[in-house]
Amino acid sequence: MSSYLRYDFANPDNPANDHLIFSKGHASPLLYSMYKAAGAITEDEFMTYRRFGSRLQGHPTPVLPWVDVATGSLGQGLPIAVGVALAGKYLDKLPYHVWVLCGDSEMAEGSIWEAFDKASHYKLNNLIAILDMNRLGQRGETELGWNSAAYVERATAFGWHTIAIDGHNLDEIVRAFDEAVQPREQPVLIVAKTMKGRGVSFLENKENWHGKALNEEQAQQAISELGGQRTLTITVAKPEAARTAPPPSGEPLALPTYEVGSKTATRQAYGDALKALGSARIDVVALDAEVSNSTYAEFFGHAFPERYFEMFIAEQQMIAAAVGLQVRQYVPFVSTFAAFLTRAYDFIRMAAISQANIRLCGSHAGVSIGEDGPSQMALEDLAMMRAVHGSTVLYPCDANQTAQLVAAMADCSGISFLRSTREKTPVLYSSDEQFKIGGSTVVRQSDADQVTVVAAGITVHEALKACAQLKADGIAVRLIDAYSVKPIDRQTLHQAAQATQGRLVVVEDHWPEGGLGAAVLEAFTVDGAGDGAMNLKLLHLAVQGMPGSGTPQELMDAAGISAAHIADAVRRLVR
Amino acid sequence: MSSYLRYDFANPDNPANDHLIFSKGHASPLLYSMYKAAGAITEDEFMTYRRFGSRLQGHPTPVLPWVDVATGSLGQGLPIAVGVALAGKYLDKLPYHVWVLCGDSEMAEGSIWEAFDKASHYKLNNLIAILDMNRLGQRGETELGWNSAAYVERATAFGWHTIAIDGHNLDEIVRAFDEAVQPREQPVLIVAKTMKGRGVSFLENKENWHGKALNEEQAQQAISELGGQRTLTITVAKPEAARTAPPPSGEPLALPTYEVGSKTATRQAYGDALKALGSARIDVVALDAEVSNSTYAEFFGHAFPERYFEMFIAEQQMIAAAVGLQVRQYVPFVSTFAAFLTRAYDFIRMAAISQANIRLCGSHAGVSIGEDGPSQMALEDLAMMRAVHGSTVLYPCDANQTAQLVAAMADCSGISFLRSTREKTPVLYSSDEQFKIGGSTVVRQSDADQVTVVAAGITVHEALKACAQLKADGIAVRLIDAYSVKPIDRQTLHQAAQATQGRLVVVEDHWPEGGLGAAVLEAFTVDGAGDGAMNLKLLHLAVQGMPGSGTPQELMDAAGISAAHIADAVRRLVR
Repeated sequence: MSSYLRYDFANPDNPANDHLIFSKGHASPLLYSMYKAAGAITEDEFMTYRRFGSRLQGHPTPVLPWVDVATGSLGQGLPIAVGVALAGKYLDKLPYHVWVLCGDSEMAEGSIWEAFDKASHYKLNNLIAILDMNRLGQRGETELGWNSAAYVERATAFGWHTIAIDGHNLDEIVRAFDEAVQPREQPVLIVAKTMKGRGVSFLENKENWHGKALNEEQAQQAISELGGQRTLTITVAKPEAARTAPPPSGEPLALPTYEVGSKTATRQAYGDALKALGSARIDVVALDAEVSNSTYAEFFGHAFPERYFEMFIAEQQMIAAAVGLQVRQYVPFVSTFAAFLTRAYDFIRMAAISQANIRLCGSHAGVSIGEDGPSQMALEDLAMMRAVHGSTVLYPCDANQTAQLVAAMADCSGISFLRSTREKTPVLYSSDEQFKIGGSTVVRQSDADQVTVVAAGITVHEALKACAQLKADGIAVRLIDAYSVKPIDRQTLHQAAQATQGRLVVVEDHWPEGGLGAAVLEAFTVDGAGDGAMNLKLLHLAVQGMPGSGTPQELMDAAGISAAHIADAVRRLVR
Repeated sequence: MSSYLRYDFANPDNPANDHLIFSKGHASPLLYSMYKAAGAITEDEFMTYRRFGSRLQGHPTPVLPWVDVATGSLGQGLPIAVGVALAGKYLDKLPYHVWVLCGDSEMAEGSIWEAFDKASHYKLNNLIAILDMNRLGQRGETELGWNSAAYVERATAFGWHTIAIDGHNLDEIVRAFDEAVQPREQPVLIVAKTMKGRGVSFLENKENWHGKALNEEQAQQAISELGGQRTLTITVAKPEAARTAPPPSGEPLALPTYEVGSKTATRQAYGDALKALGSARIDVVALDAEVSNSTYAEFFGHAFPERYFEMFIAEQQMIAAAVGLQVRQYVPFVSTFAAFLTRAYDFIRMAAISQANIRLCGSHAGVSIGEDGPSQMALEDLAMMRAVHGSTVLYPCDANQTAQLVAAMADCSGISFLRSTREKTPVLYSSDEQFKIGGSTVVRQSDADQVTVVAAGITVHEALKACAQLKADGIAVRLIDAYSVKPIDRQTLHQAAQATQGRLVVVEDHWPEGGLGAAVLEAFTVDGAGDGAMNLKLLHLAVQGMPGSGTPQELMDAAGISAAHIADAVRRLVR
């Protein structure tokens, strides 16, 4: 660490710093010991490990300024490091290294091999991973044990430069690090054969010690067997001074506009708006998982190829790369079919713990995609994304609304998600109208309203058709476009519920659980101020039954969420 | 197909049948053409492709009797095939082969490499994958293009026998299949170099044709260029007769019992009950992701090693293997930390489309796990699992309840999920008490009840403490243990709400969105019978703020879900 890592502990935001990521987050005692040895934390703080309120949590999180990202869900540190290394090589163009400590158990995670693949594809010669091959997982021997050759063969096949060493031999370690930092066009894996508990007679290479603390007597014996030394101080070299990151400015933002009544898919508006953002802000970057011609991220990719990263079909690595890019202050937008973001849910959940600011766009939402069938339909994405700590969930219904919300996402902290629609839908709103995170639009209202319909995205268009049918029957409906699913516009919902005697129909292209319906219901619980008693008669329309193929209209009819079903629901409530 | 695949189309349930899985589900036209050639479907049905109501959906699903599982989310067919092959080699002990057609784009998915890894670890010599290396993905060239050598090198490093061929050369194909079915102890990958649209001048090896249909004129030209033949009939050889699967019977079920007042973690009760089930039913199998000493799946693993599959840390492959095992009628129970099931959400979602019957147990739920910190805490699992089509979501609070629910899961169709708790908790219920899917337990009730508290799992214990505090204040509380989160016991909730003037406190160890709170709220929407108007004053306690490390009690206090917070919430509602 003292000779190879370049890190300014007094200035963790120094852009020239190396990065050190413990992909095996459960080795936190080692990481914190290194911080202590480097003088970054005190002995007193060191002893607060795993205590309530301590920064030294069971697994590293960025509550510590030197920790880039949370780890502890295995197989995530290396893919995130790929993102940091992409920033270093292609955007910052700074000579820092990204060092990663991997566990051997996590080599069974597919995400690790997505990282191996992408690191070599992008020739990340600034990435050095050290595999702590100690043979013992939590419950016994790992799949490959001490089979260095197997790890070397796999990493080599995936295009890495590999070095196998005895991880307890200082000379070999030094030689490996020297070799690792030599110029080449490949990432480097050091396979270090180690023994868990090395040097402590009752621990060394023994099972059933994973995650267990020593008692006082055992601790004394261990320290004694290890030579008795209890403190160690080292000086970590600081990096050469570097230019700071480029300022995030460009042309004035000129969002695309669409004419009311024309038809544009919101997924296309996402692509248009992302490209406009790219012109306005040079810190915006985009990633896609080999569907950029469907999500329309390709508009950005063609305009700004140097800031576009094709992740091919590797959604976990895509989210991880976005997390890594935002470590270096870039503003990543990530897109794929919303259904396939489920592939990366663990990464999204962990990104929230990492305090990461990333923006996701999931296209092809709901049964309204039509013929491709259920495997391609996102029907659980609203529930999934709402249940991410501090997340923002947006579901626009027209192109102008989409453009404004995409722009808002650029400044949104935490995990934000925009759900876009495959089909072309009519532009409802003028480009002057304002849409903000946490807002909603009252599309139809009158003093005679008998029922409130709450819709979002594709169902706004169905609800409008229902309103027209109901008007012919003399039933006035208040229609709310709840494009901000989280945070939801509690005040507007309460006003509407009051105006329509608590009669609400909520309609969504999503399974019944956890989506827009739940968001609306949750808005009627008692809040901190003690308000929120509800006297509601709420009828919820959501996708019933497993869909198959068909036209969007056939599938929305079959799911029970089309205009006719909305009109029926309204009639039931006023009957 | 005619010489190598052994399949009895008239009897798709014949245990001796080979299995054919299109991991590249978007090649459904090819699959359906093969069914037509084999005489399984008619020309008329063939022409219903992608139409509403047709069995021939855009991507294959088991609405067709010859389709084992749904594909279309790439990277899933091969891992599922690993599960079928595990069944064939280790449980059925039948000589069938599992054939898989993989796309080249999906080779970028980590789950594919989890499958490569597990297939060689388990020496699945009954598994033959064919890689259709056509070079072109949806939006352009794949990462590795026509680099056969790279695929061969990677698969070889992962322990497979590989054969590279020209995928348009019939002699080479025949030789490859001959070689593939020879006895060996490895799975086989045939890397077939192909050209997309081969033989049609305007399609061959051209970009921008992915997923696009030909117009009538183009179709005529293509057929003409391909030789003009429009129908082809082949006879598929049937397999040798085989013994049928063993009957699912064993000893009478003797579930573990626990003494009221003693303390047992529900995760341990899961392990005990699973072992008991294993004795009673020889079709029960178990899988775990290298944490069986934490989930207690190890009790089953030690008792029935031949029916236990260690998946190491590869959650996607673990779910996929379970789906594959249930294709052959086994009853898989799958366990890991509930937080890490997020890793496999796409697989769980697809399992529902596959009509799979699989049982998941997620341990270490919520902040109540204590010191390990947020990366290990499942706080979104209830939302995630509720939003799976047809799922069952259970969250028991004591050991006897857990044992009964685990037994119920064995007979449960679809995706069922049980959330277990790390900490030891008091046994509340006698082992005679009955618990069923869809039920709930009224733990405390009186005619004087002023507020209903709805809890599940760990919060039942906090709520009981709150009840004791409130009793001292003269406030009577009805306490409902909503152990069946989905389906939820709507009737009991409605009765309680009515009895307590609509005053409800819901408390859960989960993020505020989509979990128990949403489940309770959704129970008060208008149902099919038009009932369900609600006049509720519902106060929802769920995890606020990002937790860190600490004791379970400290973390539940900080999250706002401990006894004191519940008592406060009740007091606020009756004030």
